[in-house]
Amino acid sequence: MTMSENNVNAFLLFTCPDKNGIVAKITQFIYKIGGNIIDLDEHVNQNQQFFSLRIAWNMSNSTIPASKLHETFEPLAKEFDAHWRIEFSNQKQRVAIFVSKYDHCLQEILWRYNMSEYDIEIPLIISNHPDLKPIADAAGIPYHVFPITKETKPEQEAKEIALLRELNIDLVVLARYMQVLSPNFIREFKNKIINIHHSFLPGFVGGNPYKQAYERGVKMIGATSHFVTEDLDEGPIIEQDIMRITHKDTIKDLIRKGRDLERIVLARALAYKSEHRIIVDGTRTIVF
Amino acid sequence: MTMSENNVNAFLLFTCPDKNGIVAKITQFIYKIGGNIIDLDEHVNQNQQFFSLRIAWNMSNSTIPASKLHETFEPLAKEFDAHWRIEFSNQKQRVAIFVSKYDHCLQEILWRYNMSEYDIEIPLIISNHPDLKPIADAAGIPYHVFPITKETKPEQEAKEIALLRELNIDLVVLARYMQVLSPNFIREFKNKIINIHHSFLPGFVGGNPYKQAYERGVKMIGATSHFVTEDLDEGPIIEQDIMRITHKDTIKDLIRKGRDLERIVLARALAYKSEHRIIVDGTRTIVF
Amino acid sequence: MTMSENNVNAFLLFTCPDKNGIVAKITQFIYKIGGNIIDLDEHVNQNQQFFSLRIAWNMSNSTIPASKLHETFEPLAKEFDAHWRIEFSNQKQRVAIFVSKYDHCLQEILWRYNMSEYDIEIPLIISNHPDLKPIADAAGIPYHVFPITKETKPEQEAKEIALLRELNIDLVVLARYMQVLSPNFIREFKNKIINIHHSFLPGFVGGNPYKQAYERGVKMIGATSHFVTEDLDEGPIIEQDIMRITHKDTIKDLIRKGRDLERIVLARALAYKSEHRIIVDGTRTIVF
Amino acid sequence: MTMSENNVNAFLLFTCPDKNGIVAKITQFIYKIGGNIIDLDEHVNQNQQFFSLRIAWNMSNSTIPASKLHETFEPLAKEFDAHWRIEFSNQKQRVAIFVSKYDHCLQEILWRYNMSEYDIEIPLIISNHPDLKPIADAAGIPYHVFPITKETKPEQEAKEIALLRELNIDLVVLARYMQVLSPNFIREFKNKIINIHHSFLPGFVGGNPYKQAYERGVKMIGATSHFVTEDLDEGPIIEQDIMRITHKDTIKDLIRKGRDLERIVLARALAYKSEHRIIVDGTRTIVF
Repeated sequence: MTMSENNVNAFLLFTCPDKNGIVAKITQFIYKIGGNIIDLDEHVNQNQQFFSLRIAWNMSNSTIPASKLHETFEPLAKEFDAHWRIEFSNQKQRVAIFVSKYDHCLQEILWRYNMSEYDIEIPLIISNHPDLKPIADAAGIPYHVFPITKETKPEQEAKEIALLRELNIDLVVLARYMQVLSPNFIREFKNKIINIHHSFLPGFVGGNPYKQAYERGVKMIGATSHFVTEDLDEGPIIEQDIMRITHKDTIKDLIRKGRDLERIVLARALAYKSEHRIIVDGTRTIVF
Repeated sequence: MTMSENNVNAFLLFTCPDKNGIVAKITQFIYKIGGNIIDLDEHVNQNQQFFSLRIAWNMSNSTIPASKLHETFEPLAKEFDAHWRIEFSNQKQRVAIFVSKYDHCLQEILWRYNMSEYDIEIPLIISNHPDLKPIADAAGIPYHVFPITKETKPEQEAKEIALLRELNIDLVVLARYMQVLSPNFIREFKNKIINIHHSFLPGFVGGNPYKQAYERGVKMIGATSHFVTEDLDEGPIIEQDIMRITHKDTIKDLIRKGRDLERIVLARALAYKSEHRIIVDGTRTIVF
Repeated sequence: MTMSENNVNAFLLFTCPDKNGIVAKITQFIYKIGGNIIDLDEHVNQNQQFFSLRIAWNMSNSTIPASKLHETFEPLAKEFDAHWRIEFSNQKQRVAIFVSKYDHCLQEILWRYNMSEYDIEIPLIISNHPDLKPIADAAGIPYHVFPITKETKPEQEAKEIALLRELNIDLVVLARYMQVLSPNFIREFKNKIINIHHSFLPGFVGGNPYKQAYERGVKMIGATSHFVTEDLDEGPIIEQDIMRITHKDTIKDLIRKGRDLERIVLARALAYKSEHRIIVDGTRTIVF
Repeated sequence: MTMSENNVNAFLLFTCPDKNGIVAKITQFIYKIGGNIIDLDEHVNQNQQFFSLRIAWNMSNSTIPASKLHETFEPLAKEFDAHWRIEFSNQKQRVAIFVSKYDHCLQEILWRYNMSEYDIEIPLIISNHPDLKPIADAAGIPYHVFPITKETKPEQEAKEIALLRELNIDLVVLARYMQVLSPNFIREFKNKIINIHHSFLPGFVGGNPYKQAYERGVKMIGATSHFVTEDLDEGPIIEQDIMRITHKDTIKDLIRKGRDLERIVLARALAYKSEHRIIVDGTRTIVF
């Protein structure tokens, strides 16, 4: 790893059992290595005495290189029995987008990607259908089709995993990908797969949530972005939003209106991830 | 029934199988009897060919008295095989409020009642606990305590029903009343009992929804006002709203924040009912 | 005009001084010509005794052709001294999009256009800069560049007007077009030019509203879509929305977040227009 | 000052020119005196190199008493040339409510006060009218009437100021108080007077904002809570919120709907103040 440390920011995400003096010691550490703290947010879950922290600091005057930061910090982290990681602004997360036939979430992400709203790279788009290839082509991003049937799923997923590994993918975004991933795939990318579900979870899990919403007669529809776990639609929630509807809206209207929610909610979840703002705390997320 | 027809408004709520010419005939009828239409809203559920209509008109120049309106309109309604009712602005709906120990929804309703936001009368408040009597006293509204145990429930409910009948109650509002009403009670007041549930239904039915919401890690909490049916928390929804929360909010915070939602959502549902805006359409509501 | 009347909907937009019997007579008219009313919304501004109405009806069983509808309805409209128009679902409004260098509003409109959310045609895009031509090319829409300087403005606008006339343009959408149109241009397309302003009007008129918002320290930013009149940012408002911000947001953040508002607010305003839902009532709009 | 330090929380609000190591030194200080940090939020305004910080810590194991904290911390604050203050959870802010004739904001505050949502004391209510005395009486809070005319204003304000001083008032809340305070009064309570204005500032300053909103034809109304400065409606904004309206709403409807906004926005601003969350930064506020 070679990097110019000018204008590089470091991000520490850190959790441990709560104890006095954690912030003092960590900020002292950053001060000593010449880091200038830009943003600091901490939270103590007092029921569970669970401490979590995100610090962003600028490394322009750092007295140690980024490549040494991990090993320099490790002893302090061990002292607190912490889970932690350090990310750098010049090491872009590598994101794979999975799609099927709907284009709205993909288009939204690509537009923001193009506007440089995200500090990520998108080396590939994967789909079980060829339909959205023209969009990938226009964006200059390789588009890989892996058709999935019940029979071919294991081998196709194996190929996908191999490809994702080869390309050093950090994050998988399911942008209305209409296939359930196997437990094997999910374990491979634990807390690294973001999905968009077209309802206000936990309401209307599973298929056809707009039809369910219509039939239940709710006065608002929603969308939920969450990490994918082996329990369908049960993973830790990252972001949700809703929209008011009325008795005049048909199921078709809900689908149309819901697209706007899906786009924006998935886009926000990806932004939080790309800014290293998310810590998974059991079945919940902390979004700093 | 004697009434001054000056400045009285009539409200027609009307549903029937869809057909051509319904609006034409009904508005023609109102025109002929000297009514001046103030507000008209119609909706056709095209899947089910279900027509619904609300018309409000002023009776200042009416050529027939309010007391004759029902029988005069009936032949037209029969022609369309309709369900319908006509209400008058000078016949206030008589509302009973049911409470337990939480006062926020009751206070909200009483404050709005006092501000004349609702065109209703509240002849009594019923509770299974004596705690909120001082609030009722301050408002000058009789407060009846019917303590409920598993054993006494049938007889206590029978007394409540008798009292509600005696006072010609049109609507029962459960303002955080912490008792499940019996099927018998519910049948007695079909589509005439409004409840406030402290979650975004259908998420988190049953008890402790804020605890459920906390544990699921949702990013928004909600409240839902609905008609009470025999299936707990499954009745037709009248109004819902939500509020954003974060990982910093404890269950106690959710309870506190949720109070604001419960108050406002129940208050709106009661406003819609008091303005004769709601038609129940199976498991759903039309709120004009 | 030849049209298949199967599945054609007609839309009447109608305003007049308030009087008894208007709805009755108009719905009677529609009934007699075999129209089936799908949607009806009326409003009486009681202060000004101003009546307004939108009716949508299906013409599948119409006893008169669409081409005769105007002259058949005219006598009734005269009786009420009305302003009115009738539109048909198979006569798509022809919309010209004006842009400068920002692409987000244009992209949003084109995506929805492509998804068939709007019942419109976009025969051309006009810009004072060549930058967005590739987007127009990808969408297969002619892109005309009219560079504007203080000196060339009158002649360039004259060319634009000629082109818009030639192409029978019904509506001009300023999708972050960074030029003030001359009074002459505005008069030519009275109530036919929709703008998006990047603030919650009437706050922050004129240039740099995000900078103004930052400096004033507001806790929410907004966007406003309005008809263009000769008074800058003073035209009748069609739609507005807002987004919460915090002290952490820089002007750059406001610009980025505001893009999402601008897109959605302009998109909604165009939807309302394309569905024939808007009546201008002096300095205000009625959006049915 | 005597206090039990068990379960007392301390709150530091701290601003200074930005520099490396501030957080490290302050958290080190808190660690050394046995404080357990519960919440820490910092912000650097990078344009102006302005650093701001809020830390809440528990003093159960504090090695120095609260009474010594100020002098112990002072040298560190001087090192950074800081503005700062330390507050304690067991020293309730003393709040005076000013009202005129509208009761909704007062009722809202008193209900929350009664629910212990605020960690404050309300030793008195001041009004220029006797109307709301019964509400104060019911809450057991002294109610002082100071009728104001143009002539009597200086002497009446002088009496008010004397009374506020005598009662050690920390904060004045104008809960729809319909009098403009004199510059003298405002200087006396600099950044200690919170007002609620019934519009989305900077839109519709001055009188009759709902009438202004109606006439401008906005699609949303708002309310704004801000600190009072000598420039009317120009003080630093603490909180804002909005509500959607339609062409059907009359001015009277806006007034009624706006009451809900005014109540909630003022209630939130008071909550932020009571939790020591607000720092005034020139014309803006930082709300941690």
